Amino acid sequence: MDGLMQNVPLTVDRVIDHAAAWHGGREVVSRDADGRVTRTTYAAVHADAKRVSNALAAEGIKPGDRVATMAWNGARHLAAWYGASCMGAVLHTLNPRLFMEQIVYIANHAGDRLLLADPAIADLVGQLLPQVPSIEKVVFLCDRASMPATAYPAVAFDDWIAPYPADHAWGQFGENTACGLCYTSGTTGNPKGVLYSHRSNYIHALMTLQRDALALSARDTVLLVVPMYHANAWGVVFSAPIVGAKLVLPGQRMDGESIYNLIEQEGVTYSSAVPTVWQMLLQYVQENGKRFSTLQRVTIGGSACPESIVRTFRDDYGVDVIQGWGMTETSPLGTVSVPNAAVAAMDDDAQLAHKLKQGRLLFGLDMKLVDDAGNRLPHDGKTPGRLLIKGPTIASGYFGGDGGDVLDGEGFFDTGDVATIDAQGYMQITDRAKDVVKSGGEWISSIEIENIAMGHPALANAAVVGVAHPKWDERPILICQLKPGASANADELRGFLTGKIATWWMPDDVLFVDEIPLGPTGKIDKRAIRAGLTGYKLPFEASR
Amino acid sequence: MDGLMQNVPLTVDRVIDHAAAWHGGREVVSRDADGRVTRTTYAAVHADAKRVSNALAAEGIKPGDRVATMAWNGARHLAAWYGASCMGAVLHTLNPRLFMEQIVYIANHAGDRLLLADPAIADLVGQLLPQVPSIEKVVFLCDRASMPATAYPAVAFDDWIAPYPADHAWGQFGENTACGLCYTSGTTGNPKGVLYSHRSNYIHALMTLQRDALALSARDTVLLVVPMYHANAWGVVFSAPIVGAKLVLPGQRMDGESIYNLIEQEGVTYSSAVPTVWQMLLQYVQENGKRFSTLQRVTIGGSACPESIVRTFRDDYGVDVIQGWGMTETSPLGTVSVPNAAVAAMDDDAQLAHKLKQGRLLFGLDMKLVDDAGNRLPHDGKTPGRLLIKGPTIASGYFGGDGGDVLDGEGFFDTGDVATIDAQGYMQITDRAKDVVKSGGEWISSIEIENIAMGHPALANAAVVGVAHPKWDERPILICQLKPGASANADELRGFLTGKIATWWMPDDVLFVDEIPLGPTGKIDKRAIRAGLTGYKLPFEASR
Repeated sequence: MDGLMQNVPLTVDRVIDHAAAWHGGREVVSRDADGRVTRTTYAAVHADAKRVSNALAAEGIKPGDRVATMAWNGARHLAAWYGASCMGAVLHTLNPRLFMEQIVYIANHAGDRLLLADPAIADLVGQLLPQVPSIEKVVFLCDRASMPATAYPAVAFDDWIAPYPADHAWGQFGENTACGLCYTSGTTGNPKGVLYSHRSNYIHALMTLQRDALALSARDTVLLVVPMYHANAWGVVFSAPIVGAKLVLPGQRMDGESIYNLIEQEGVTYSSAVPTVWQMLLQYVQENGKRFSTLQRVTIGGSACPESIVRTFRDDYGVDVIQGWGMTETSPLGTVSVPNAAVAAMDDDAQLAHKLKQGRLLFGLDMKLVDDAGNRLPHDGKTPGRLLIKGPTIASGYFGGDGGDVLDGEGFFDTGDVATIDAQGYMQITDRAKDVVKSGGEWISSIEIENIAMGHPALANAAVVGVAHPKWDERPILICQLKPGASANADELRGFLTGKIATWWMPDDVLFVDEIPLGPTGKIDKRAIRAGLTGYKLPFEASR
Repeated sequence: MDGLMQNVPLTVDRVIDHAAAWHGGREVVSRDADGRVTRTTYAAVHADAKRVSNALAAEGIKPGDRVATMAWNGARHLAAWYGASCMGAVLHTLNPRLFMEQIVYIANHAGDRLLLADPAIADLVGQLLPQVPSIEKVVFLCDRASMPATAYPAVAFDDWIAPYPADHAWGQFGENTACGLCYTSGTTGNPKGVLYSHRSNYIHALMTLQRDALALSARDTVLLVVPMYHANAWGVVFSAPIVGAKLVLPGQRMDGESIYNLIEQEGVTYSSAVPTVWQMLLQYVQENGKRFSTLQRVTIGGSACPESIVRTFRDDYGVDVIQGWGMTETSPLGTVSVPNAAVAAMDDDAQLAHKLKQGRLLFGLDMKLVDDAGNRLPHDGKTPGRLLIKGPTIASGYFGGDGGDVLDGEGFFDTGDVATIDAQGYMQITDRAKDVVKSGGEWISSIEIENIAMGHPALANAAVVGVAHPKWDERPILICQLKPGASANADELRGFLTGKIATWWMPDDVLFVDEIPLGPTGKIDKRAIRAGLTGYKLPFEASR
């Protein structure tokens, strides 16, 4: 027997409809590449999004067609986002910072029909167009006066939508309809597309709005530093309009001074970004003796948060740092490091230790740790296992069927991470599954050794990789890049690690290289390191 | 084209599963009728709920069958709640405070097969049983030692579930499956049943957990004074386990001293109740010079909140009062009076004036004001209209088809309330639609005149009703019940109202009665008043 409640689909047109109806006058502030600040409102973004839907329909865009954006965060990007999704098209966010060959691959794979681009990347678009024949039209997210000079035809966003009324009929589809497309920058193989549904984005937004998650409020002014092309913008593109927070979209400039000025000028209370941005901001603030007059809390995600950032924000500036974990495939938020009652009652050091973990699972999701055979592992804070996750906001597969069936027998998605979970339910990522060193049936965290080795003053960078071993399966070796002018030898580094890691974690060899290879997102490229080790033999073999 | 996210149904077994897995050791505290406090945990409630499902299956309960509870708030009631719902049966909460004839009507209408009852109401159950032949078995929510002596067969809950393992397979059904049944205590006609779905309860819980709604946290200790049989317990039966709040279930005793002691003993930080309970609590605290050492915020709903409660809590005890509005048909939360940015920037009096309104609409819902012809009315804070509401947590009809099609052409449910909505989106109930006085095409709020009249020191109670008028359609008359020993006449009351209400709102007559009739929930029974006015004529007619 079914319940007798209203059958109202969970679609994201309701998000911007709600913002326009109940927070219509709340500001959306954008800063363009020239540093110029423009102001609009949720009501005006809503009206522009309706015009976008009409403009797309006039271009022949049909439900399910992919409409790409490649742009920094701004109000026109926001209107394009809702304009495409709410008419039933798929809003595909392209990342302009990827290598050209990746962008070309992704745009072709997605079959993007329209490209709405930032005027600052007109040259990049010019290189892209000949290689992506599916793109029928380019719209620059600006007014006519700001149009870049191009050798290819393009139209200004404002001119493109101007002829159309703000009255498109939205949401004439089910809640499982595709809403957005975002590709993972996989470190192996080609990028793969995550196809969000209206339902998953709607539920994800509600999940993140809990007090024990991102806890946005109508009284917040939100600076969305996380790019809209990165992991669904952590859902803030949905959650801020839902609550009626003032939304500040910073454009391209991420340097400390630009971000600081925007925070102070707009009265920002909350912001979300990767650690690098916060490091640049804190450095600027410290060097210039600045204070934050309105900032209350920041969310950090994308990679593990250094303790120094948490301490500096908290102790020197009274700003609370909330660590979140997730990935493109998880909408993205999966865990949030907000204290439960037991942790809140702990002493300061213990609370901080928990805050530095990736955090507690959001309701609606299941999460498990398993060994290579798929057996569940204990939540003891010590035993590492592959991290798998399940829920209505988690990917079930990739666009076009890439990667095949990615769920296990219980319907869980393998994150590719190795993690521990402690007795309080706090998850901590210890390694990428492909980087963990499996030695004698136990798992050695490459990241943990790297982090400790990086404490040595002579090192500019450090990488640990596993090398095949006849008895132990694999053994770790440490690869070091020295700072310019610094020196250190293998024995010094072994001595430095002694006592800081378990004896059986001690690298069997220490190598020095001029430069540790990095991938496009700045992370260590272990695939390149492994390729460079072809023919390498562990010392005991080499000396045999 | 559909998105590629996991197909995980929104069912409430996930709520208690989540609580057991991630907040398993968090306490659930119950106080029984004797004042005895017992402690369990979410993990233990989860295990008991699994046993309940097995016990129900052994009794032949099938998906869709109604399982009734008639009990105060306690941990066994919670286990019964989840045990029934999570196996696909419908948990029907009967209100033991209704008149017997209403309970009989409701239980027969629902076709309840089992009754899980509080041992304190064994006599009431004894009266009920012969009149409700569908009830096959009675289980008292207690252990064997606490079993009441009865002339009819009954079993103790603990004995009933003891034989069964804690491993029932839950959730083998779709999210629209019926989950709970709760009857409205309609002031006209028979009670009607609202049939919640798993989906509606799940979404409602997420909606209420927003920081700008009830904002429960893992660090909260929640005292659920609102009965579990009243309007879905405001969703707290779901939201507290979701976040892992400690849950305190107070049983039957609602006097100020009992509630105060429970708050202090258990370290309660948050509680929800109707105004009467808070009035009794504040009176006790004031008369005995007590302080609250942990209480931070309280939610008030069920009827309009007197300003004195808000001021006393805030100014004397530092407790924030959050007003919520809803009804059984709305799951129940529809609006919450949490400040937006504009209101937060207002002066103290203006903020308080907004806090006393019923509040801002929760995301996911639509709300409109219409006139009798269904035309939308402005949100100017002045124009009253019929309040209609729509969304995935709003009823689409009643159990058994009672009342027929209750939605308008746009799919909105008519709340039966008359309200205004101001420029900040704050809704304020001004009257019940059937009590509003329609005079010359304008609407006069009976409640507003009553509230002002009640400021006269001689009045114990006041009621305003509309009387037919040949020119104006209706005109208001004021009916007064004097305090014992007090005196006042019609002219004095007209003089008292002059300047406080619009001249055309002035009652055409003032009548004095010994006692104004009240309904079962303590509200003025205007139907009875109107029945008593049969043959009454307005002064100008009577004197004609």
